[in-house]
Amino acid sequence: MQVVQDEEKGKDAERAKWYTDVIQQAELADYSPVKGCMVIRPYGYALWENIWKPLDQMIKDTGHQNAYFPMFIPESFLNKEKEHVEGFAPECAVVTHGGGKKLEEPLIVRPTSETIINHMFAKWVQSWRDLPLLINQWANVVRWEMRTRLFLRTTEFLWQEGHTAHASEKEAEEEAAKMLDVYRQLAEEWLALPVITGQKTDNERFRGAVRTYCIEAMMRDGKALQAGTSHYLGQNFAKAFGIQFQNQAGDLEFAYQTSWGVSTRLVGAVVMGHGDEKGLILPPRIAPIQVVIVPIYKTDEEKAVVMERCNQLFAELKPTVRVHIDDRDNYTPGFKFNHWEKRGVPVRFNIGPKDVQKNVVEVVRRDTGEKMRDYSTENLPAKVDELLKTVQKAIFERALTMRTENTATVDSYDQFKKQLADKGGFVMAYWAGSSEDELKIKEETKATIRAIPFNQEAGTGKCFYTGQPATQKALFAVAY
Amino acid sequence: MQVVQDEEKGKDAERAKWYTDVIQQAELADYSPVKGCMVIRPYGYALWENIWKPLDQMIKDTGHQNAYFPMFIPESFLNKEKEHVEGFAPECAVVTHGGGKKLEEPLIVRPTSETIINHMFAKWVQSWRDLPLLINQWANVVRWEMRTRLFLRTTEFLWQEGHTAHASEKEAEEEAAKMLDVYRQLAEEWLALPVITGQKTDNERFRGAVRTYCIEAMMRDGKALQAGTSHYLGQNFAKAFGIQFQNQAGDLEFAYQTSWGVSTRLVGAVVMGHGDEKGLILPPRIAPIQVVIVPIYKTDEEKAVVMERCNQLFAELKPTVRVHIDDRDNYTPGFKFNHWEKRGVPVRFNIGPKDVQKNVVEVVRRDTGEKMRDYSTENLPAKVDELLKTVQKAIFERALTMRTENTATVDSYDQFKKQLADKGGFVMAYWAGSSEDELKIKEETKATIRAIPFNQEAGTGKCFYTGQPATQKALFAVAY
Repeated sequence: MQVVQDEEKGKDAERAKWYTDVIQQAELADYSPVKGCMVIRPYGYALWENIWKPLDQMIKDTGHQNAYFPMFIPESFLNKEKEHVEGFAPECAVVTHGGGKKLEEPLIVRPTSETIINHMFAKWVQSWRDLPLLINQWANVVRWEMRTRLFLRTTEFLWQEGHTAHASEKEAEEEAAKMLDVYRQLAEEWLALPVITGQKTDNERFRGAVRTYCIEAMMRDGKALQAGTSHYLGQNFAKAFGIQFQNQAGDLEFAYQTSWGVSTRLVGAVVMGHGDEKGLILPPRIAPIQVVIVPIYKTDEEKAVVMERCNQLFAELKPTVRVHIDDRDNYTPGFKFNHWEKRGVPVRFNIGPKDVQKNVVEVVRRDTGEKMRDYSTENLPAKVDELLKTVQKAIFERALTMRTENTATVDSYDQFKKQLADKGGFVMAYWAGSSEDELKIKEETKATIRAIPFNQEAGTGKCFYTGQPATQKALFAVAY
Repeated sequence: MQVVQDEEKGKDAERAKWYTDVIQQAELADYSPVKGCMVIRPYGYALWENIWKPLDQMIKDTGHQNAYFPMFIPESFLNKEKEHVEGFAPECAVVTHGGGKKLEEPLIVRPTSETIINHMFAKWVQSWRDLPLLINQWANVVRWEMRTRLFLRTTEFLWQEGHTAHASEKEAEEEAAKMLDVYRQLAEEWLALPVITGQKTDNERFRGAVRTYCIEAMMRDGKALQAGTSHYLGQNFAKAFGIQFQNQAGDLEFAYQTSWGVSTRLVGAVVMGHGDEKGLILPPRIAPIQVVIVPIYKTDEEKAVVMERCNQLFAELKPTVRVHIDDRDNYTPGFKFNHWEKRGVPVRFNIGPKDVQKNVVEVVRRDTGEKMRDYSTENLPAKVDELLKTVQKAIFERALTMRTENTATVDSYDQFKKQLADKGGFVMAYWAGSSEDELKIKEETKATIRAIPFNQEAGTGKCFYTGQPATQKALFAVAY
């Protein structure tokens, strides 16, 4: 397996073109007339639904409730948390007129909803009995971006944002960790993307948070993609918005909080994390179509026989499998093969007259290209279920192998630069540098610390950059 | 059954207070710091989920696909359909700044998405083979409102908007009718609200549509609420945005279109359509909690016995019923009864030590107040399922009876005015007046034509207002 290297600008541009071509040809999304905003087309939206629905269930299963808050935020609210406004104000879209009149106070279109939600939390929380308050919101948000890319970075995007308030730091930290693990599960078990979990350094921390945790995935060009974040906010927003509760001892205390989110960026992660030169490769659990049936015939007589068989297998699979028959008669089978490969449908059935006679189909796997001729149709739903699980696992394993093969550990800055220039990918190294050191490394190599990974082997070493003693390794990579 | 009369201002204000009190006390929604925008709280959002989820399924079952379009619309787009811009421009929120700079062209926050969606349709539609194009979007929209009311009229609201393009007027008209019927089903079968289906007069037509169809429900104060609309747009937007297709004869033709939508207003319809002096009454099919179990005990010993029984019944019901145990130990049973009545939970189980002994529970229906003591717990899930169906039907029948009792037919304007002044409700009358006549009637009585109902008995008569011969009756009412 080879990772596409894109250290040179040419390769980068080629990869970017591949990405946008695949997305447009698979009809996941389209450019819109509004700068930086995209149109999510039905196939892309169906993929997003297959991602957010299981996540919504996981969020509910962990005790959270959905709610909805206004998308307009009074400008003064944003100013209440100093670091937060510094981080987000430059990216804001501002409504200055409404109903034909100039507004007294401009309204910000939410870039994230900590401010408006915590304003409401302050109304709702009085006593320890009101805690924990575990809220999630599905919404659109807007961040004015200079350079955008379909799904990965758009001015408007869809996401969920969790916001919680707790009676203690310990409980809030447990919440932040729990939701990071929900994101890990979603990424690994549904999107088939192995992720590194860890903590962000101060440079990459959410503005307003005490600590930011993240899941980071490797894309097929070796770059890193931040796929989700979970923040321990401490009492920062509670103090800014006055969220106080009477604790069990009867004293007033500021609440301890978290927030966490993932977005339509995950669709981009699936495209860039699994796709190949033929187009998308979709993990079966989230694929809008899991099995596509392509009838193959020459004469009208053959068509009647083949279509009958296709319809019969369709009916058999329909209750348990997302199955589609491509019965368009103005396209050739070859055109259709290509059409569904581009769209990443995990399994294709080719059915011709001989297959009907023999009670078999030809099965083609999208992930490996493997063809299984004379695939018996006996007990088909159970077999297809097995096959889809096998494909899901194989796509995950392929991504994990790629990541393992493209993760190196280095001891010196020379080695570090050589590794990134020659191979790209993830680079692990003992780290004891400062925020300024990190920025210098970024300037010189484009790589940033994606995370201080959890689950490190205990050990000590020498920081590859400063030479100082270090107790943990950092994960560096060039990121999207 | 008595309809609250609110012809006098005092009654109107009382009813408005009842409405907002119920919504806030039941924790469906709260006022937000942003003028005209509300916060949908978890209980209200769960109710909304129970409305939009079955609707989403019906929309998919009728062949539509979800997609997502930018919420920002270039100001110039709105200007492309003359009537449309006249209708919506005064209600728009306008983004003038983004990323710290003044925008070259202001962006409108969508009040509805015909313009941006049809701009994209023009890109996607070339041939009759691309039709019909059947798209739905779940989104937030903004209409700057002067007088707002929680759920019924808010500046920002959540909705779905369907947008379709067809190869013929006939097919588009069938689509508009089909989706109106989907809305009727949703209202009657899920929300337990009987609705009148019909066509809007020109005064109430969607700006940009050729014809607007609607479902109208009667609230418990006799007023009408427009609960959903479906529009036949003709070729108006197709011509404005250039949606042309090559028809089967090889000629270029403009597409025929529809759009249709329902919103979070439906939550307000449920509150105002079923509630009583004690609070909400929720139809079981959409109730976030269908059965609440209230344990009743005095001693710790009793508590242990009663809670064990409650947990056992909870476990039995959980797989098929949305059930909740109110096990808070800092509130009395009486407080809890009131708490859940306010929230409209259809069925309550009271369980005390004697009930445990006798293997029974006390069942209380929220809609009728009926108490069933010594309700046997044998075969409980099936019995509860039956009971919930009975309650669902009873709530619908109660609303239908109220509507029937408060719908009058009149022959003269004097009768019309007297009916509205004395009784309110719906008034049916033969109608052959003009738009101006309709406006005069509104000025004098506040009543408007809610619809020219479908399913009228064939017949002719004399217009109650103009005296001209008329072939159909109009449904008049004071509306929300």
